[in-house]
Amino acid sequence: MSETPPDWLKIASRMMGQTPFLASLDGEVVEVSARGARSRVPYGPKLVGDPDTGVVHGGVITGLLDHTSGMAVMGVLREPLPIATLDLRIDYMKPAVPGEDIIAECHCLKVGHDVAFVRGSAYQKDAKDPVAICTGTFMLMRSAKKE
Amino acid sequence: MSETPPDWLKIASRMMGQTPFLASLDGEVVEVSARGARSRVPYGPKLVGDPDTGVVHGGVITGLLDHTSGMAVMGVLREPLPIATLDLRIDYMKPAVPGEDIIAECHCLKVGHDVAFVRGSAYQKDAKDPVAICTGTFMLMRSAKKE
Amino acid sequence: MSETPPDWLKIASRMMGQTPFLASLDGEVVEVSARGARSRVPYGPKLVGDPDTGVVHGGVITGLLDHTSGMAVMGVLREPLPIATLDLRIDYMKPAVPGEDIIAECHCLKVGHDVAFVRGSAYQKDAKDPVAICTGTFMLMRSAKKE
Amino acid sequence: MSETPPDWLKIASRMMGQTPFLASLDGEVVEVSARGARSRVPYGPKLVGDPDTGVVHGGVITGLLDHTSGMAVMGVLREPLPIATLDLRIDYMKPAVPGEDIIAECHCLKVGHDVAFVRGSAYQKDAKDPVAICTGTFMLMRSAKKE
Repeated sequence: MSETPPDWLKIASRMMGQTPFLASLDGEVVEVSARGARSRVPYGPKLVGDPDTGVVHGGVITGLLDHTSGMAVMGVLREPLPIATLDLRIDYMKPAVPGEDIIAECHCLKVGHDVAFVRGSAYQKDAKDPVAICTGTFMLMRSAKKE
Repeated sequence: MSETPPDWLKIASRMMGQTPFLASLDGEVVEVSARGARSRVPYGPKLVGDPDTGVVHGGVITGLLDHTSGMAVMGVLREPLPIATLDLRIDYMKPAVPGEDIIAECHCLKVGHDVAFVRGSAYQKDAKDPVAICTGTFMLMRSAKKE
Repeated sequence: MSETPPDWLKIASRMMGQTPFLASLDGEVVEVSARGARSRVPYGPKLVGDPDTGVVHGGVITGLLDHTSGMAVMGVLREPLPIATLDLRIDYMKPAVPGEDIIAECHCLKVGHDVAFVRGSAYQKDAKDPVAICTGTFMLMRSAKKE
Repeated sequence: MSETPPDWLKIASRMMGQTPFLASLDGEVVEVSARGARSRVPYGPKLVGDPDTGVVHGGVITGLLDHTSGMAVMGVLREPLPIATLDLRIDYMKPAVPGEDIIAECHCLKVGHDVAFVRGSAYQKDAKDPVAICTGTFMLMRSAKKE
């Protein structure tokens, strides 16, 4: 076991850079640590779900929350492990308005041997007035335990 | 009230054509009717979440299920109404493998005055072996009732 | 490994008989097999959430769906394993009316090494007009893999 | 509209007292206000799901979180309204141990014209180490808007 925890921010940023789907949104990983994970996606035409209003497509919010939730699990691990989303619930509280960045913040509430629980939210200007919130469970792919 | 139900497939296809985010996946609406909604996204580099394996990003699956669920609500309505996702749960049952199209099929189980309930699944070759399933609630934006 | 699958109905009925909380509802396990699990709770004053209307309390529906979902996982296993609910989503589609039994039917869609996915519904007279539907994930407690 | 907000704690306590299902658990409403809702259920034999271990049945936790979530919605309303659970997700993070009271705390994150969003958790000794967390949406039954 390593003495110093891994630099998750560097690892996560590299992962994000290697993800065509998310990289295409020009997303940026801001923080990955035991305190949680935070990502930011700048507003732009690629995010638009409704061209008449410029409102952001829900799939962008969902993808960002899913990805940031997975990074929040990484932030509490001592060694890198592949992580798979088991299930994710998103509640859409209001539309993401045009012109503002979207920030996702997620926290790992509990990590067990196999499964981690995460909560998070996506917001634009005010973290207390979220665009969407999420709750999800994530599977830790520990190869050692596989039969 | 119109005598003949609207041609939801035409309306939905036009909507999808006007959605930059989903259109960028080259998605196609296959069916929108009272029986349900079906969409298809061809496999391609834009869908890839993990470049080493070619596995499809979960956000693609989620976005497709969200969109197709909303179309399933449209399919049971008599007149067009704006629809907003209230919440959506996705269970990811296995990775979407490279090289195969992804099909989403969703059914509206119940539509009330304000809220509709939808279930669906995404699969590749076999509808009985889904990549993911979803359950969601959708708000019907009836302007008449707004204060 | 046993040649014949276990008699899950007998095992599940005995478990239900030993569960004070559910036994107090006079619940009955009707089927537990690889096809799914089915339970029935007779209408009675213990179920009532609203004394003015006689409508059944949502907690009864939820508890029944949770329990029946767990039995659906048992039905697809070859050997008995402890099962724990990881998460459960319930959608309440209409109130359970007074005077009618409540039936829960759940199916295990996929069982992996660690986690099983289940869908189900609760209804009164008509299985196609459910009172509530559920989706959940369940952890299989395989002691062999525990550290 | 009333000048002073209603005494939700009194109203909610009376509602709980009139609910046979929850009253049978000897539950108590501790707080209902704009800050949130809190309930407490004393440990006792009625809560037991597994007689061998004394572990509390998940249905108790779920029912308590559902009920307390609904009270959290009441706490932010200006006038009493019937509230119905649309959907509820529960994540079960660890078993509720024997001998300790169970406390549920829920907060209404947003209340719109028709739908309210609530998050909550259930814990025993330590609010930071929850037994379960929940997220749900609730329908406000405004008779005025019904057609």
